[in-house]
Amino acid sequence: MQQLRRDPVTGRWIIVHHDAEKKPKDYIAELKKFPAKPEGKVCPFCPGGEDRTPPEIYVDRPPSSSANQPGWNLRVIANKFPALRVEGDLDSQGNGMYDRMNGVGAHEVIIEHPDHRITMADMSDQEVERIILAFKHRCVDLKRDRRFVFTLVFKNHGESAGASLAHTHSQLIALPIVPKKMQEMLRGAEHYYQFRERCVYCDIIRQEQGQKDRVVEENERFLCFTPFASCSPFEMWIIPKQHSSQFYHIREEDIASLAQLLRRTLARLKKTLTDPPFNFIINTSPIQHDKELDYFHWYIEIVPKLTPSAGFEWGTGFYINPTPPEKAAAWLRNAKLKA
Amino acid sequence: MQQLRRDPVTGRWIIVHHDAEKKPKDYIAELKKFPAKPEGKVCPFCPGGEDRTPPEIYVDRPPSSSANQPGWNLRVIANKFPALRVEGDLDSQGNGMYDRMNGVGAHEVIIEHPDHRITMADMSDQEVERIILAFKHRCVDLKRDRRFVFTLVFKNHGESAGASLAHTHSQLIALPIVPKKMQEMLRGAEHYYQFRERCVYCDIIRQEQGQKDRVVEENERFLCFTPFASCSPFEMWIIPKQHSSQFYHIREEDIASLAQLLRRTLARLKKTLTDPPFNFIINTSPIQHDKELDYFHWYIEIVPKLTPSAGFEWGTGFYINPTPPEKAAAWLRNAKLKA
Repeated sequence: MQQLRRDPVTGRWIIVHHDAEKKPKDYIAELKKFPAKPEGKVCPFCPGGEDRTPPEIYVDRPPSSSANQPGWNLRVIANKFPALRVEGDLDSQGNGMYDRMNGVGAHEVIIEHPDHRITMADMSDQEVERIILAFKHRCVDLKRDRRFVFTLVFKNHGESAGASLAHTHSQLIALPIVPKKMQEMLRGAEHYYQFRERCVYCDIIRQEQGQKDRVVEENERFLCFTPFASCSPFEMWIIPKQHSSQFYHIREEDIASLAQLLRRTLARLKKTLTDPPFNFIINTSPIQHDKELDYFHWYIEIVPKLTPSAGFEWGTGFYINPTPPEKAAAWLRNAKLKA
Repeated sequence: MQQLRRDPVTGRWIIVHHDAEKKPKDYIAELKKFPAKPEGKVCPFCPGGEDRTPPEIYVDRPPSSSANQPGWNLRVIANKFPALRVEGDLDSQGNGMYDRMNGVGAHEVIIEHPDHRITMADMSDQEVERIILAFKHRCVDLKRDRRFVFTLVFKNHGESAGASLAHTHSQLIALPIVPKKMQEMLRGAEHYYQFRERCVYCDIIRQEQGQKDRVVEENERFLCFTPFASCSPFEMWIIPKQHSSQFYHIREEDIASLAQLLRRTLARLKKTLTDPPFNFIINTSPIQHDKELDYFHWYIEIVPKLTPSAGFEWGTGFYINPTPPEKAAAWLRNAKLKA
């Protein structure tokens, strides 16, 4: 029997297939049909390629090494092919009934590791800590630019998830507007708060910890679970147990805990579905809310790319999920990790 | 320079790349990298496969032929692997803070033509008329079921657009809820109407006819254009010039006009981008509005699948379109059609 489930924040509905659900082996068989695109010979993100990228904006490197030279552990650079450009003013204008604006924004690339072959799932906890620290530092720096009201940290892993280079990297975009999706999440969360005087995400954490069947793993400070109304099979959220609306307010002592759970979660995904393509994004409140909000809660959303989004999903914003989140959580929990 | 553009109905923003835009040949080169999945030997949608599909719900066949036997021109059947099932009641219930409902709905397949190799772009106008007539008849029939409030007609063409069988077909889903995306469109359109006392879509038609640079083709009753804030490169809308909110109210004498423009539009797309994967959907008002609405306007949305949707799009609901709609319209207009 199929079931309709509603997302408690946005109100979006999904369809879950409850019997005859798709199993990891079904997805793995489908993924194998798409051969990877052959890679170019020289990777600009590898050590030695520094002169083929824009200069470092932020870097983790030993004091013995020189800027824009090999020897680094992690580099942040401007995206060479940015979705938005950092120069210029916003210059909003109408064109008859239409509104447009200059495409001003920042678009940066976090080159996470010098090793071309490694993925976050195989790094050490300390290496993942470096990445999270870089996310935090770049968000804090970009919020000083008064033109920007929103930053999004995201990762595309695998070609069909939009990665154009194989070398492990993530991206950061700062925008002059709050995107509609975040506005909807804020509105949904605020509405819930007005009614109940509790954060909807804090309530989700409590219910998931009580029900347990969608919990993948938790540690002292973070919880990983498959959401009740997952749009995508094997979707996972990693959320801080203590209320906080702004990712870049994360305390340095919590970064190690997040790094460990993020690394282990991505290792579970890799093991369960043999390194599937995925996206992750950090949902966090807009910059104008530099102050903590009572009603919003930041979290990392990990979305494997396992099903093509087709006409129905596009036409309705209504997703079909062939694997119940409860079963996905069980498979992910049972993945055998090395560490 | 990049430009941000806002959809006048939903408020969604997109990013358009204005210089160094992607051209048809760039997309064609990328599409070639994905070899098609080998097809199974026997197609259940071909004449002779009738016993391997559910029985006909609606059919166009000469009186000399028998039901569920070869000889038909078009068949509508229940989907063998439905997203929702037609049996049962809705049975909405809570689970702590979560809401769920039985997955009751109808899911039908329109097998558009007996010829396995043909696509809508290559059919005769009369054959496309048959398909539109089938859409209309099935919508009218399903609205009698009081459990359903919304129907969506859609087509997935090509594997990466979600088509699981190559034989030309489209689908119809009847739902017990109005999806969030349609609710947003209705809200946006109603808001515009309250303010200006005009249908936002009628205003769009007037502006597009005046500006002309996004018009692909028009005939007496329908207009085809690339929308100002297209989420996808080469996105097109086909919209009736005369106001109407409900697709299934289309008059029989207008169906020929729509069939001709739809067929020619899909032929332009096929010619310009060498048969790319695409989805189309018919956006129409919910069934409870069986009466015509002043503020909404039905239209067909054709969305080629040319760019992978990545973390940024997922995280923000904000689309990056590497080809300005004005340039896409010029390429599509210039496609040489046989008829």
